[in-house]
Amino acid sequence: MTQTPIKTSTGKTFTHLVSKEGGVKYPLKALNVCEETFSPLEVAYDYDEIRRQVSRESIEAGPHSIWRYKAFLPVESENPIDVGTGMTPLVKSNRLARQLGLKNLYIKNDAVNMPTLSFKDRVVSVALTRARELGFSTVSCASTGNLANSTAAIAAHAGMDCCVFIPSDLEAGKVLGTLIYNPTLMAVKGNYDQVNRLCSEVGNSYGWGFVNINLRPYYSEGSKTLGYEVAEQLGWELPDHIVAPLASGSLFTKIYKGFNEFVKVGLVDEKAVRFSGAQAEGCSPIAQAFKEGRDFVTPVKPNTIAKSIAIGNPADGCYALEVARKTNGNIESVTDAEIVEGMKLLAETEGIFTETAGGTTIAVLKKLVEAGKINPDEKTVVYITGNGLKTQEAVQGYIGQPFIIEPKLESFERALERSRTLERLEWQQTNV
Amino acid sequence: MTQTPIKTSTGKTFTHLVSKEGGVKYPLKALNVCEETFSPLEVAYDYDEIRRQVSRESIEAGPHSIWRYKAFLPVESENPIDVGTGMTPLVKSNRLARQLGLKNLYIKNDAVNMPTLSFKDRVVSVALTRARELGFSTVSCASTGNLANSTAAIAAHAGMDCCVFIPSDLEAGKVLGTLIYNPTLMAVKGNYDQVNRLCSEVGNSYGWGFVNINLRPYYSEGSKTLGYEVAEQLGWELPDHIVAPLASGSLFTKIYKGFNEFVKVGLVDEKAVRFSGAQAEGCSPIAQAFKEGRDFVTPVKPNTIAKSIAIGNPADGCYALEVARKTNGNIESVTDAEIVEGMKLLAETEGIFTETAGGTTIAVLKKLVEAGKINPDEKTVVYITGNGLKTQEAVQGYIGQPFIIEPKLESFERALERSRTLERLEWQQTNV
Ligand SMILES: Cc1ncc(COP(=O)(O)O)c(C=O)c1O
Ligand SMILES: Cc1ncc(COP(=O)(O)O)c(C=O)c1O
Repeated sequence: MTQTPIKTSTGKTFTHLVSKEGGVKYPLKALNVCEETFSPLEVAYDYDEIRRQVSRESIEAGPHSIWRYKAFLPVESENPIDVGTGMTPLVKSNRLARQLGLKNLYIKNDAVNMPTLSFKDRVVSVALTRARELGFSTVSCASTGNLANSTAAIAAHAGMDCCVFIPSDLEAGKVLGTLIYNPTLMAVKGNYDQVNRLCSEVGNSYGWGFVNINLRPYYSEGSKTLGYEVAEQLGWELPDHIVAPLASGSLFTKIYKGFNEFVKVGLVDEKAVRFSGAQAEGCSPIAQAFKEGRDFVTPVKPNTIAKSIAIGNPADGCYALEVARKTNGNIESVTDAEIVEGMKLLAETEGIFTETAGGTTIAVLKKLVEAGKINPDEKTVVYITGNGLKTQEAVQGYIGQPFIIEPKLESFERALERSRTLERLEWQQTNV
Repeated sequence: MTQTPIKTSTGKTFTHLVSKEGGVKYPLKALNVCEETFSPLEVAYDYDEIRRQVSRESIEAGPHSIWRYKAFLPVESENPIDVGTGMTPLVKSNRLARQLGLKNLYIKNDAVNMPTLSFKDRVVSVALTRARELGFSTVSCASTGNLANSTAAIAAHAGMDCCVFIPSDLEAGKVLGTLIYNPTLMAVKGNYDQVNRLCSEVGNSYGWGFVNINLRPYYSEGSKTLGYEVAEQLGWELPDHIVAPLASGSLFTKIYKGFNEFVKVGLVDEKAVRFSGAQAEGCSPIAQAFKEGRDFVTPVKPNTIAKSIAIGNPADGCYALEVARKTNGNIESVTDAEIVEGMKLLAETEGIFTETAGGTTIAVLKKLVEAGKINPDEKTVVYITGNGLKTQEAVQGYIGQPFIIEPKLESFERALERSRTLERLEWQQTNV
């Protein structure tokens, strides 16, 4: 291997905000919507400067966290908030792949992302670092659960004040997994889209840093690391196909941006990567638009156990549609029953306990394979974005039961006999 | 930096089992007790061979998991079961350290260990790899919860049959976090010590690999990696003081073994490290023996919310006592109320949500600091060994509540005013 010379430039790599439509430029402030075009703002970079700063070697020598990709992220601090976020395992699947008939399946496991066990720790690490740079002392968010966990935890770590908003009907683990960090928690009687609207109003008058509203351009960039890591972990190569869940659609489009940036600066070779998205049938506005060939998304009222991805009016829905279409991917939805089966399937075959969003993604993966929309030979990466311990309600009642026994050998032996009989019956049922 | 020559020897580094007392040798089979001395068996190594195989550089170039220390672990396989276990963050504490008045505090965060969020994934990765080598197709364990989660998950990943035993009164998250992987689960009406006795009987007649019984000598070696990682993450240096929880006492004594082995093979300089242990008052047989100056442990009946460390008759209790005494450490216990406060303190200051065992450890850390038993300048490492999402019951009712509001600005503003009043009152109460 030839040694690349050490890159020494350390100039700022991000230059301004720009509207996704019309290319209107804005300064690097807490802004998220273009006043002229009403389209979202995005961070723009100086890719020549990035190319001067990074190489495969410099990245590999960096920290084992998202901050190894700091040149691609919109923060200036020498010491960004680093709580170990990122560099989660990319697992080569054996047992799940075999069960689905795939030859080249990888699981990107953000169910064990740090510190709060979802991919949201990526976006929040970036957003709170940027919030600190912009002088905010209070941070906030509108959340379907995971974002609240992450914002509260990382704010606690960084010593920032925190007030988070969630729909009042979330799972117990998501609520407690926020309260434990002692933020102010507002549980709003309404769905996420109502929470989000309320937060937009609050944002205007309180001067808080809302990670997914006025800080959204910075926040959303954090999801690009899910693209970078997969490319690096595949040995500096892009996959053929990815499958990821869609709520607002941000994650999905940012993985796409991440892959393209790696190509642009010469870290990986160009490749046509297919992007397929997963939604729950009870909240599938993007999947519906995809199916009907629309390029706009019609809002829906969510009704699904997959609460973390239950966004009826997705901010980046049309961009997600565009990515799926132009990459020859698909957007599919699955029922709540299929979601539970997806969670169980991943746990039983790979030992990974994911939440409902992950169950959705696995169920959609299965559906796409069965419909011939994923080729068995494609190098496919499925993104698991959250942990099952936070949505225990979803599987309670759909999994096996313990055998309650006395602390005596005979009691154990009777139970074991019963369990073997049950297994035999199940085997017979599935083999008639 | 001078380049160490690449080590090329690949001979087997572990040679036999040996009884902790009397030094009776045994072959590398599924055995755990010496038939002559009745003392536990331990794995013995050829440290000259290890020294030939490893260097700081070779370890740093290894996988980002416990398997970078493979030469120190009792497995032969080229491809041990690797689910990303280990290399969890060693966090330099700022806010907790300041609150406790410590200048040099580090948190080893196994609350985010992979795949099942406790240090048990370390011991199980080793035990199941060895179980496979010894030809077992069914694996089992007696567990206080975390071990069951880990054994079921990693067995599922590896495609092994699995039957696990727990006390029937465990937390919901521990039970569901086992069942999701679809093992046979035996919930025994009794405490852990009764479960353990039952498993010893079962072990004799079923030919299963019980990770913490007949495979215990291999299993327990996995905990040494908690010592290795801390030494490596401190920049190849040992800390001055460690604080870790005690259930059977195995973890504690194996961190000690790990440090000593690193000194023995020349990876770190020798240093007097103080070992302090943490127990819950409701199950503190080792702390009681320590206080009373006994070198034997009198079994107790557990009654504490810290169920994962509720072992009344600890297998390695006397060895843990010995380590604490000879290193000039301490063994302390704390009440259930202090445990809850410990969990909250760690979450609020560092953004880490740990389970009851971690709350115990933090509370003991605090107690030792307040008693002057930890010097503020000592480089102290506190071991957080499990995740709070699994023991939600323990803090439910002891943390803040959400403000339930309508999706309207006025409703939010009234709630915010209430929350600020509450804060003022709290502040006044703690400052009178
Ligand atoms: C676990 C999980 N996966 C996926 C998503 C989708 O994220 P996005 O809004 O970026 O599409 C979310 C959003 O909250 C989530 O919590
Ligand atoms: C979270 C946690 N910490 C610590 C321990 C203590 O382990 P040991 O039995 O090795 O002392 C356990 C044991 O089950 C545990 O579950």
